[in-house]
Amino acid sequence: MKRAAVLGAGSWGTAFAKVLADAGNDVTLWARRPDVATAIREQHVNPDYLPELRLPTAVTATVDPADALDGADLVVIAIPSQTLRDNLGDWATHFTPDATVVSLMKGIELGTLKRMSELIVEAAGVEPDRVAVVTGPNLAAEIAAEQPAATVVACTDTDRAARVQRAIATRYLRPYTNDDVIGCELGGAVKNVIALACGMAHGMGFGENTKATLMTRGLAETARLGVALGADPMTFAGLAGLGDLVATCSSPLSRNRTFGEHLGRGESLEQAQAATRYTAEGVKSCLAIRDLAIKYGVEMPITEQVERVCHEGLDPRVAVRALMSREPKSE
Amino acid sequence: MKRAAVLGAGSWGTAFAKVLADAGNDVTLWARRPDVATAIREQHVNPDYLPELRLPTAVTATVDPADALDGADLVVIAIPSQTLRDNLGDWATHFTPDATVVSLMKGIELGTLKRMSELIVEAAGVEPDRVAVVTGPNLAAEIAAEQPAATVVACTDTDRAARVQRAIATRYLRPYTNDDVIGCELGGAVKNVIALACGMAHGMGFGENTKATLMTRGLAETARLGVALGADPMTFAGLAGLGDLVATCSSPLSRNRTFGEHLGRGESLEQAQAATRYTAEGVKSCLAIRDLAIKYGVEMPITEQVERVCHEGLDPRVAVRALMSREPKSE
Repeated sequence: MKRAAVLGAGSWGTAFAKVLADAGNDVTLWARRPDVATAIREQHVNPDYLPELRLPTAVTATVDPADALDGADLVVIAIPSQTLRDNLGDWATHFTPDATVVSLMKGIELGTLKRMSELIVEAAGVEPDRVAVVTGPNLAAEIAAEQPAATVVACTDTDRAARVQRAIATRYLRPYTNDDVIGCELGGAVKNVIALACGMAHGMGFGENTKATLMTRGLAETARLGVALGADPMTFAGLAGLGDLVATCSSPLSRNRTFGEHLGRGESLEQAQAATRYTAEGVKSCLAIRDLAIKYGVEMPITEQVERVCHEGLDPRVAVRALMSREPKSE
Repeated sequence: MKRAAVLGAGSWGTAFAKVLADAGNDVTLWARRPDVATAIREQHVNPDYLPELRLPTAVTATVDPADALDGADLVVIAIPSQTLRDNLGDWATHFTPDATVVSLMKGIELGTLKRMSELIVEAAGVEPDRVAVVTGPNLAAEIAAEQPAATVVACTDTDRAARVQRAIATRYLRPYTNDDVIGCELGGAVKNVIALACGMAHGMGFGENTKATLMTRGLAETARLGVALGADPMTFAGLAGLGDLVATCSSPLSRNRTFGEHLGRGESLEQAQAATRYTAEGVKSCLAIRDLAIKYGVEMPITEQVERVCHEGLDPRVAVRALMSREPKSE
C-alpha cells in the first residue's frame, strides 16, 4: 500500500485517482476549489468532472497541497500545461524525498518550448530519474467506466518505472514500461495538432482513408521531430504515439477533433471558439511545435498547415491541396 | 502514357482502374463475367461493384486475359488471395517481358503460408525485382469518390517503385515508395485479424481506448512477426501498417470489423456468417498467421485469442480478460 497525491481534480486527475485507489493505494486529490474537495471527501463524487463516477473510499481530497503531499511516495500532476511552472513553486518544498513525480500532462510550454518533465526538473529541482510520464490511449471517461485499456509508464530509471507500473495496474488498465520519456511526451503533445487536422478533414466530409493518412503522416512528422530531440523512433509506433493518437482522433468526445470539425466546415477560429466555448489545446500547441520544428530544422507539413489554418486564416481546402501536391517521397 | 492491365473487377480493382486512368494510363480491366466486361466497355460502369462510379473513357474491359495483358507495362492483380495460384497459371504466359506486376491483394496462402508476391514469383516465374505491392489506407469506395489519401508502392527495385509511383499519382492519391515488400504485405494481411478484434471490442460495448489499445498492441505483434520474416519494423508505423489498420478498424464499412461486432455481441461463428452472409477474410487468415507465428516462434496474443474465438468457440469476454491479465511488460 502506497500513499499517492494527485494534484489536479480535472477529469483525468479524477479518473486516475480512482485507478490508484483500485490498485490498492491511499489517494489524496488536491483540488483548487473548496466545494470540489468537500464533495469528493464527503460524497465521493467530483461534481465538475465525471459526476457519474463514484470514487472509491480510499480517495480523499483537500485544497491544501502540503496536506495532499504529506508522506506521498507518488506525486501525480494533472493540471493545465501552461500553469505548471507557477504551481511547482508552491508545491516543490512539500515533495517527499525520493518520491516519484508522475506527469499526466500533454503540452509544451509556450516560449521556452520545454516538455512538462523538463519543467518538473527545472522548476521543482527534482532529479530527472525521479520523473515519470504516464500516457497512452486513455480517454478519462472510458477509464472511469473501467473499459479495458493499456498505458505507458515512461521513466529513465527502469526500476522506478516498474514500481509505478505495479502501483497503477488494475484489471481494466494494463501498464507497459518504457524508458523513452522524450518520445512519450512528444507523442502526447503533437497528437492534439494531428487531431485538429483529422477534425478538419471530417468537417470537410472526408472519410477514413483521409483521416488514416493524416494520422500516419502526422505520426511520421512527430517521429522526425522526436528523433531530432533524442527520442527513439519506435516509441511513436507504441501506445504513447499511435495509441494515444488513434484514441484521440477517433473519439467524438475529443475537444481537439471537435474543434477541427468546426474549422473544416469553414468557420473562422473565432466562430469555432464561440460555438464550442473553448480553445482546443492543439490551437495553442501548434505554435510551440512549429517553433520546435524550425529550431531543430525538421519538416512538419501537417503541423505547418494546421498552424496556418488556425492563426493565418488559411482555407482548410487549400491546406489539404498543399499537403497532397508536395514532391513525391519515399516513406 | 502507359498500357496497364487490371486483373480483377472487384471494388478495389475497379477503383484502381479509375486511378490509373486519371493518372494518364490506358487501362484494360479483366472481368470474369462477360456481362460485367460489356457494361464497363459500353456503359463505363461496373454493375456489381461501386455501381455509382462512372469510369473514365480510358478504361475498357475484356474477359480474355491475353487481350487485357497484350502490351501492358503494368500488370495489376486484384483477385481473392486463395484463387491467385490457379489463375497465375493461365496468365503468366501473356505477361510482357519486363512488365511490372503489382499486387493489390492482402492475404497469406493457406497451407503454404506464402505471401502474394512470393506466389507471383513462384507460380508465374516473375523475377522478385519486378513485383510491386500497393497497399495503404485505401478503402475502395473513398478512393472512387476522390477523397484524399496516400498509399505505398513497395518494390525491392527502387527505380521501378518510383516508376509505379509516377504511374498512379493523382490529385487525390499520393503514393510513397518503400523497399520493404515483406513488411508492407504482412501489414495488410494481419490487419484483418486485428480488425476482427476491434469489431469484437466494439460489439462488447467498449470505446476508443480499448480499440486504440488493440490496434497498437496488434501492430506490435505484427511487427514482431514481420521482423522474424525479415521486414523493417518501421514499415509497421507507416501507411501499410498503421495507416491501413486504422482505416480498416475505424470504418463501419469494413467487413472484418463488422463481422467481429457480431462475434462480440455473443453470436457464434455460424450465427455471424448467417447474419452477414459472408466469412470475413480475417477468419481464414488468422489460421495462417497463427501458423506463421508458431513456425517463427513469435508471440501474437491478439491473433491467438481471435483464432480461439473464431474457431474454438471461446467467449470474447474471456479473450479480453486473458489479454488484460498477462505478465506486466515493457513496450
